[in-house]
Amino acid sequence: MKEDAWIGAIRRWTAGPARRDLAAGIGDDCAILRPPAGADLLVTTDLMIEGVHFRRGQLTAEQTGAKTLARGLSDIAAMGGEARFALVSLAVPEWADARWAKAFYRGMAQLGQRHGACIIGGDLTRAPRLAADIVVLGYAPRGKALRRDGARPGDVIYVSGALGRAAAAGFADVPEPRLELGRKLRGKATACMDLSDGLALDLHRMCLASGTAAELDGVLPCAPGATLEQALFGGEDYELLCTLPAAARPPRGLVRIGQMTARRRKGEVWFAGVRLNPQGWDPFAKPARQQPRRA
Amino acid sequence: MKEDAWIGAIRRWTAGPARRDLAAGIGDDCAILRPPAGADLLVTTDLMIEGVHFRRGQLTAEQTGAKTLARGLSDIAAMGGEARFALVSLAVPEWADARWAKAFYRGMAQLGQRHGACIIGGDLTRAPRLAADIVVLGYAPRGKALRRDGARPGDVIYVSGALGRAAAAGFADVPEPRLELGRKLRGKATACMDLSDGLALDLHRMCLASGTAAELDGVLPCAPGATLEQALFGGEDYELLCTLPAAARPPRGLVRIGQMTARRRKGEVWFAGVRLNPQGWDPFAKPARQQPRRA
Repeated sequence: MKEDAWIGAIRRWTAGPARRDLAAGIGDDCAILRPPAGADLLVTTDLMIEGVHFRRGQLTAEQTGAKTLARGLSDIAAMGGEARFALVSLAVPEWADARWAKAFYRGMAQLGQRHGACIIGGDLTRAPRLAADIVVLGYAPRGKALRRDGARPGDVIYVSGALGRAAAAGFADVPEPRLELGRKLRGKATACMDLSDGLALDLHRMCLASGTAAELDGVLPCAPGATLEQALFGGEDYELLCTLPAAARPPRGLVRIGQMTARRRKGEVWFAGVRLNPQGWDPFAKPARQQPRRA
Repeated sequence: MKEDAWIGAIRRWTAGPARRDLAAGIGDDCAILRPPAGADLLVTTDLMIEGVHFRRGQLTAEQTGAKTLARGLSDIAAMGGEARFALVSLAVPEWADARWAKAFYRGMAQLGQRHGACIIGGDLTRAPRLAADIVVLGYAPRGKALRRDGARPGDVIYVSGALGRAAAAGFADVPEPRLELGRKLRGKATACMDLSDGLALDLHRMCLASGTAAELDGVLPCAPGATLEQALFGGEDYELLCTLPAAARPPRGLVRIGQMTARRRKGEVWFAGVRLNPQGWDPFAKPARQQPRRA
């Protein structure tokens, strides 16, 4: 298939109903959006590469498409946003034929449909290894997007589900983006982010951004089969990590794991009396999958 | 350097003045934009991969950064838009150290500054080969974005500069995106697109989208050192290709190359009495750089 035939096919594979806020999708130099008045526009990108983020054969084509999009949708969830549009830049190796590509885009489009996001563009090229970069655009009511820098000492820390699931599964899973929960947290959570690189590292980042430290309770919701180390340092769980004022009643689906504090140094994360190293999934650490460690 | 150190450095390397339409840039799960009322939002992505789009050592780090962004800016120019924001997903191999990365982002940020676009986010990972996916966002007045599907028989076809330049330079050049010219074409051009894959293929696409055919005059503005084949089929020139009604006076900087016609079959492009094959730069054609040919 030549490039234009690919693009025509992708258009069919990802076709969805018309939308008032979309003036032009796939087929021109740019997609054209008409965001509604009063909406803040959220934009995120996430790059996933064969041999770095997954191994060939670890995921089906559908799962690869779904996971590519899920990682971007999770960023919109983390901001309390509504996902609307996605663009995907795909580099396909020789082994990925048209059947593989169809399943990839179908897997992506189906996950998008469930969450209100449609595919409106992207780029396509050949490469020796599979690489997929996702762009997701979404809305939040003006000024209401959740940020990671608003946590205060005394706020209670929550996660949206069991941790260490991805690490226990050898990172061969497709996460479920927490979009509905993210929207429910608007106006309630003081800080929110998604857990992409592991609790220890991501909570450290939230603490740094907010100017706080964290004291974990010492009991974590661990996924079936996951070790405590995987729950703390594993990464790729794509659960939400958020803080609420101590007096606030958390929405269903959140599990308390600790409290923000001013009694430790800014950025520090303590777990059962031990200070955790801010380590987790870091593509710049060696080896590619890091050794989790306590400080 | 670890990931967080990289992100902090990128923030410094790409820092620009505050903007009213940017509520949050690099540092959270998403960037937050506030597009002005009445603006259509343009979005484009473009993926550039070492070994496919360029060879290592062919471009300096600054040029690699500038070219990555230029390809995206050119899509905004093709729609008559104003470029505002860019996000870049970068996969860096071992050979690209912090000095290389600094020059890459500086090259990108400097080109962006010249055209009013700032870098507000992206993603960063390791990979065996360099890969850079650019996202550019821009504005056009509502309903005024230029499209490729509005050309009519009788419209005159123009290009914005000499063709075959990139092919003659072995694709080791950084194109200058035609943003100013694109904006001048709003309300004047009946169709517009950028020349990324060569005149023969891109004009074929414009004809198909518009339901017309094209008759070229037989004289083309060829870049110094470029052959006629390179001008027709070379690709990566990133000049604008547009059509204006025959009676319209073209803005400065456009060169007439032919006319749209209803006397040929839709999609066909004729040059000096010969029908051109719709061929050009196509990553799915073999070999990677195609053999230009006449029909």
